[in-house]
Amino acid sequence: MRSCGIVVEYNPFHNGHRYHAEKARELSGADVVVAVMSGNFLQRGEPAIVDKWARAQTALQNGVDLVIELPFAWAVQSADYFAKGSIKFLQALNCDALCFGTDSDTVFDYAGYGRFFIEEKAAIDQLFHELPIGWSYPEKMAEVVSRLYPKAQNFPPNHLLGLSYAKENAAYNRPMELFPLPRKDQGYHDQTLPADQFASATGIRQAVLAGEEEVAAFVPREMLQELKQTAISWEDFWPYLNYQLRANSLADLREIYQMTEGLEHRLVEQAAPDFAGFLQTIRTKRYTKPRLQRLLTYVLLQVKVTEIKAEQENSMLHILGFTEQGQKYLNQIKKQVSLPIAAKIGQQEKEKHFLTYRADQIYQLIHPQEQTIGRFPIRV
Amino acid sequence: MRSCGIVVEYNPFHNGHRYHAEKARELSGADVVVAVMSGNFLQRGEPAIVDKWARAQTALQNGVDLVIELPFAWAVQSADYFAKGSIKFLQALNCDALCFGTDSDTVFDYAGYGRFFIEEKAAIDQLFHELPIGWSYPEKMAEVVSRLYPKAQNFPPNHLLGLSYAKENAAYNRPMELFPLPRKDQGYHDQTLPADQFASATGIRQAVLAGEEEVAAFVPREMLQELKQTAISWEDFWPYLNYQLRANSLADLREIYQMTEGLEHRLVEQAAPDFAGFLQTIRTKRYTKPRLQRLLTYVLLQVKVTEIKAEQENSMLHILGFTEQGQKYLNQIKKQVSLPIAAKIGQQEKEKHFLTYRADQIYQLIHPQEQTIGRFPIRV
Repeated sequence: MRSCGIVVEYNPFHNGHRYHAEKARELSGADVVVAVMSGNFLQRGEPAIVDKWARAQTALQNGVDLVIELPFAWAVQSADYFAKGSIKFLQALNCDALCFGTDSDTVFDYAGYGRFFIEEKAAIDQLFHELPIGWSYPEKMAEVVSRLYPKAQNFPPNHLLGLSYAKENAAYNRPMELFPLPRKDQGYHDQTLPADQFASATGIRQAVLAGEEEVAAFVPREMLQELKQTAISWEDFWPYLNYQLRANSLADLREIYQMTEGLEHRLVEQAAPDFAGFLQTIRTKRYTKPRLQRLLTYVLLQVKVTEIKAEQENSMLHILGFTEQGQKYLNQIKKQVSLPIAAKIGQQEKEKHFLTYRADQIYQLIHPQEQTIGRFPIRV
Repeated sequence: MRSCGIVVEYNPFHNGHRYHAEKARELSGADVVVAVMSGNFLQRGEPAIVDKWARAQTALQNGVDLVIELPFAWAVQSADYFAKGSIKFLQALNCDALCFGTDSDTVFDYAGYGRFFIEEKAAIDQLFHELPIGWSYPEKMAEVVSRLYPKAQNFPPNHLLGLSYAKENAAYNRPMELFPLPRKDQGYHDQTLPADQFASATGIRQAVLAGEEEVAAFVPREMLQELKQTAISWEDFWPYLNYQLRANSLADLREIYQMTEGLEHRLVEQAAPDFAGFLQTIRTKRYTKPRLQRLLTYVLLQVKVTEIKAEQENSMLHILGFTEQGQKYLNQIKKQVSLPIAAKIGQQEKEKHFLTYRADQIYQLIHPQEQTIGRFPIRV
């Protein structure tokens, strides 16, 4: 069976995501579409508006055959690490192709860009050494790409994620065939709802959280039901974060993953009535909103540097659900997969993906119906 | 001016406490009654039902002349440390006498008991060395007292606190004169309300938290007002503790003060609907309720071993309030006091009593009207 991988968050699942799954199958000529999906906390440092099981279920009802959970330590990360984790998982799942969204209609040779990092390694390494010591890794990398591969510059944000996928993918012995797909929905950060059936996830989230009823046109029926029952946001976790910032000493905060450059001082003693107000208070030009939201997620979950590494090294394929086709594919690959498979979370699995488990435990404070231990994969 | 010290918690202030203040003045012949009082968290590991300012105010209106805050690191402690801290503070305040409640009418020579620890030091030390290594300090101490000073055995619980005061007091160059006072109110743990005007604090708390109206006979009018407006209990903090136990790893919990003997394993993954249910789940014969409640307070405040020592070493006399007489006394002693005096909490004071400040910050999650920074002492 030929398989096409996709990397998703589905926050929430909308019509553009169904289009993506259909096109992934069509463009790659795949028999099965395999999604690697973030769990209850997401790449941009936010809780998912709807829990992972509901998102997986809707995906399986709308064109996806197999949903595997990307654990917290890979999911709640900058684009680089997020891509590294997702490609690792899709490679472990023996995917033949990868289809990803791009905001750009411009034809761009992603595979060539990926190979550039392999083929020009010596030149890249040398330039890295010559750049000022004070620069951060992302700053140096941007400079390297700008000088040695200028074609990759000045693209919109979703394109950058595609670049990261291409780079990671090229490093494997058997890279997946790449299928960039110009996005059907509105721009990634577009906050208004459009006239046709494709709206951005951001626009849909804002409408739902504002209590508006008008999102029915943009999401599958199954997701609409879920959104009506639960719509979770950072505001739900604000009382816990606010408490934690009062309980943690500066020394405690300094042990939190990504708490660099004295950021802990910005976080304490900021009086704010809610999360939005708090975020506004601590923002500066230097830090993007996702960077700060991830940091606050790490505070909320009390995540330490060593814990991120430990969970990453204990990666396993946690199956959230499958269709009949997805199950056949699992049977086909199960003897070749390079990561352990977990059909449900027991004591051992809980200890491997312990940050993901912790994220679930905290998510369940707001959404007690969710369940982690012993839950069987969804069958559609 | 002759001064008599008292050690109090006032949770809440009731008629028995007014009787205590009056008798302290009368028995000791003092011009001024000086109270060292726990702040917003108490010796038995509980949040105060009414905040420290309201308790200080009622005390000043009912026979006390000066109220000094016993900081968190000395207050939320076993009887030994609680006594060590309170006597240290009363000594720093140059008190001439100490009047404390005892459940026993039996005449007992507290001062003699205190001197025994000084005079028999060699014999006590030797016996300590001979006792099994596996015994804890309190176990060894109980054995030492039982063998070398059997008269101090088999007294009710409040008497034990008196013994601790006597022992600490005797170690100073100028010990305070001791005035034990048989308690007028019901037994310490009595949960029912009696027919006369003296009920135990425990009985009053339970009645208030159960929403009963019948406590008016047992507390001064000022306290009744406060109790009607706010009546805080552990249940108010249960959501935060429940969250914290999900966010902390076992390694995090092991760093908490007093988390000994693998207690952290008992605390995690206990499903309970509320604090009372949770406490029930984790209780064993080995640990008393106050011991466990203190431990949970340390978890709630994320208190580490080194932090307790640091706050203890930075002890200062934080004035919560005074009467005219109390102010005169302060003026008299202010050049001789052995600890720094703080009339209000600013940046420097916050850093000295940082656990007390943290306790306030967390108490204020439930009781936002309370204020720490820059608040002036109450004048009555």
